[in-house]
Amino acid sequence: MNSLPPIADIDLRRATLCQLLHWLAAGRVHAGQLAEVYLDAIERINPQLNAYVKLRPAMLREQARMAEHRRRDGIIGRLDGIPIALKDNFDIAGWVTRSGLPDGGHPAEQDAHVVARLRASGAVLTGKTNMDEGALGAITDNAHFGPTHNPHRHGYTAGGSSGGAAAAVAAGLTVAAVGSDSLGSIRIPASYCGLFALKPTQGEISTRGMTPAARRLDCVGLLARGVDDLTILLQVLAGYDADDPRSRRRRVALSPPDWEPGQLRCGVLSNLPALGVQPDVVAVFEAALAKLDRELGQRRDVDFEDWHFARARRAGLLLMEAEMLGTFAAQLADTEHPVSARFRSMLDYAARKTAADYAQADRVLDAAALKMRRLFAQIDVLVLPTTPQGAFPLNGPVPDTQADLTSFANLAGCPAVSIPMGTLPDGLPIGLQLVGARGSDLRLLELAEVWSATLDAAPDYPVLP
Amino acid sequence: MNSLPPIADIDLRRATLCQLLHWLAAGRVHAGQLAEVYLDAIERINPQLNAYVKLRPAMLREQARMAEHRRRDGIIGRLDGIPIALKDNFDIAGWVTRSGLPDGGHPAEQDAHVVARLRASGAVLTGKTNMDEGALGAITDNAHFGPTHNPHRHGYTAGGSSGGAAAAVAAGLTVAAVGSDSLGSIRIPASYCGLFALKPTQGEISTRGMTPAARRLDCVGLLARGVDDLTILLQVLAGYDADDPRSRRRRVALSPPDWEPGQLRCGVLSNLPALGVQPDVVAVFEAALAKLDRELGQRRDVDFEDWHFARARRAGLLLMEAEMLGTFAAQLADTEHPVSARFRSMLDYAARKTAADYAQADRVLDAAALKMRRLFAQIDVLVLPTTPQGAFPLNGPVPDTQADLTSFANLAGCPAVSIPMGTLPDGLPIGLQLVGARGSDLRLLELAEVWSATLDAAPDYPVLP
Repeated sequence: MNSLPPIADIDLRRATLCQLLHWLAAGRVHAGQLAEVYLDAIERINPQLNAYVKLRPAMLREQARMAEHRRRDGIIGRLDGIPIALKDNFDIAGWVTRSGLPDGGHPAEQDAHVVARLRASGAVLTGKTNMDEGALGAITDNAHFGPTHNPHRHGYTAGGSSGGAAAAVAAGLTVAAVGSDSLGSIRIPASYCGLFALKPTQGEISTRGMTPAARRLDCVGLLARGVDDLTILLQVLAGYDADDPRSRRRRVALSPPDWEPGQLRCGVLSNLPALGVQPDVVAVFEAALAKLDRELGQRRDVDFEDWHFARARRAGLLLMEAEMLGTFAAQLADTEHPVSARFRSMLDYAARKTAADYAQADRVLDAAALKMRRLFAQIDVLVLPTTPQGAFPLNGPVPDTQADLTSFANLAGCPAVSIPMGTLPDGLPIGLQLVGARGSDLRLLELAEVWSATLDAAPDYPVLP
Repeated sequence: MNSLPPIADIDLRRATLCQLLHWLAAGRVHAGQLAEVYLDAIERINPQLNAYVKLRPAMLREQARMAEHRRRDGIIGRLDGIPIALKDNFDIAGWVTRSGLPDGGHPAEQDAHVVARLRASGAVLTGKTNMDEGALGAITDNAHFGPTHNPHRHGYTAGGSSGGAAAAVAAGLTVAAVGSDSLGSIRIPASYCGLFALKPTQGEISTRGMTPAARRLDCVGLLARGVDDLTILLQVLAGYDADDPRSRRRRVALSPPDWEPGQLRCGVLSNLPALGVQPDVVAVFEAALAKLDRELGQRRDVDFEDWHFARARRAGLLLMEAEMLGTFAAQLADTEHPVSARFRSMLDYAARKTAADYAQADRVLDAAALKMRRLFAQIDVLVLPTTPQGAFPLNGPVPDTQADLTSFANLAGCPAVSIPMGTLPDGLPIGLQLVGARGSDLRLLELAEVWSATLDAAPDYPVLP
């Protein structure tokens, strides 16, 4: 019945989510076959990458089998049969949610909101991915579960805190992944691994059942091998959740893109070296802007010098650490499965802070949010590198600037997209970031789609032996 | 030209804002005359009430003169010529904002948002009214400025923290007043003084230029002698303010009322004695419900027993006190003009709390907000007494339950209206409270208007010699 040649396993592992939906719909691949290809890759490659920290192959096969039944019956969901990985800070009913800590306590009773939505859409859950302890870090060199390696270069960081998720997507061990982003945790690994990522408007995707870091900053984040994949995932996962106090009803439905390229008001971050962005990254950024020249519309330089973002980032970190003293109280008291000395010392810092310090930090975030609101009254999109540097060796020093270019979007609740913008001299990828006003998620994704096509900078996703 | 008899001064002082707008439009009274009537009353009566703590008669007269010019030119604002008082925690350019503390430091450079809106609408600012020190209390027995007396009975509290504002409205020393409400500070004095009050949806009226108490709970509050007055004030003051981080764009415009009385889903708080509501208040409440019987629609009992609102109120108080350590840092350090021992000891309590305590308190508020959100998915309006008791002697014990029935609306960001519901056996008034879902402000006001007409319980506002 189907005379087209079968699709090679390696192509199934490099394809975008959209491409796979097309092949599934055309009957050129079946959910069960897709599951086996990904399971086989995971079994062979995960031991060297350490992207996943928990797998249930039998469950995965069962989900794929049910997807095949549904497709035979003609009643399928939006993501039917698509393998999706989850960061280990989302609840899956019956699984322990560890959030990178040694012991997560009891198994979760309910699926997180996004897990329930994924299941309802027919997605096949592959497993849980590695992360920084408590999501407090950006290298995914976990003291309890070991480091995740960058699929582009062994021994290098995949970024974090959603590093396992990014490594799994880049190495073809899942089609897409759902992680979290409180200061940049989805965009930093996307930049280092050459992926596409979305941190949506705060409150747009419910965080119910996601381990809280700092509720004011926490967002669900999406990782994929193409921009359109992010759009589909957003549409499946977004929407008001009455049970999430931070979930917001939209003022208007997420609008389809309505700006003309020529009328776009594009802010470009101008003082990159002063912000600690490495010269190699500046060079790739400048080259990308040159390629995009005709698509930037009315270009305007934006200067962050008096924005005190470092202070705002520290304020955000204090909120996060202070909340974690409550979130992880049981684990911090558990002497049998102690947390790492590094994690404990970070929280000890917050434990010495007062309620007045917290209130003051929260006000600093209000001020930063106002700055951004005023900026986005004047521009439609802010363009900047996603990270000040590319991936670095896991055994080397860790730069303290990793979240400097990502955290302000969280402070202001704005959506941000990261797309590959080119290759650094060491051969590793680096990301371009688009940040927009609250609620402009779909517009940002459309711009990202057009610009990605122009840049054509997605790396060849590595096929590890 | 005008053959109708002049309006007596006493009627001008008892009239509603709407009535005065009508008389001004009809030429039966002029702004200058109105200003003189109120100034004369303030001069004679304020010494015994202590409602105002700051007056500028020359400025008031100048504003009234300009209002007369505008009316002659036919270019008038919505509140043109109407005297309005302000609680002393709103900035007026050139005035020191003391917020009930002994020394407020430098004069404010800019008008608060509501002050600017009032000026633009042609209102005449009468002066600043007394309040609890730092808005942290509900009796307006200020250690630095003295107690405000209830116009209905000397020696009794007017409530607080907007007690001076309420006394001024009830005694005919202003037409209406703008105060603040973080746990009930506008509704409690409205209940004790027999007035009408609105605490709008959080974020609906900008709080820029209002001394922050707890940003998450703070609302501008309105006090008047009629429901329609509140509606006009809301329409003048509400709207998005890009410079207030808590200001929200409305999802929809404030909707005109659209429920049919027969289809109203009305929740009635059922376990009043268990919540510490005094038997006399319960009796007045029951009588009011009996009168309103045909207007309550589908009536449903609502039980607060497992709602842990006391814990939520304490959590709100911690946020407030912790923020005040920052807001009033200069005043707390000023040994020349020391704050009261009571105020200092309340903030000292917060000073011993940690950042983790603050984060935990903030989460308690999230949980309370969720409870309210679920409640208002099932009912349109919650009806309950505004306060567990009426006004009490200033020299007697202070009940610690004063904000028990008001604070949950702040925790959830919901609008709440207080209207007079009857008279207690001691002859003093007591308020009925209507609380609705976020954004239902205009609907609540419409209900309040209908119910007020049925109850007909507004007291005779006292005309003090």
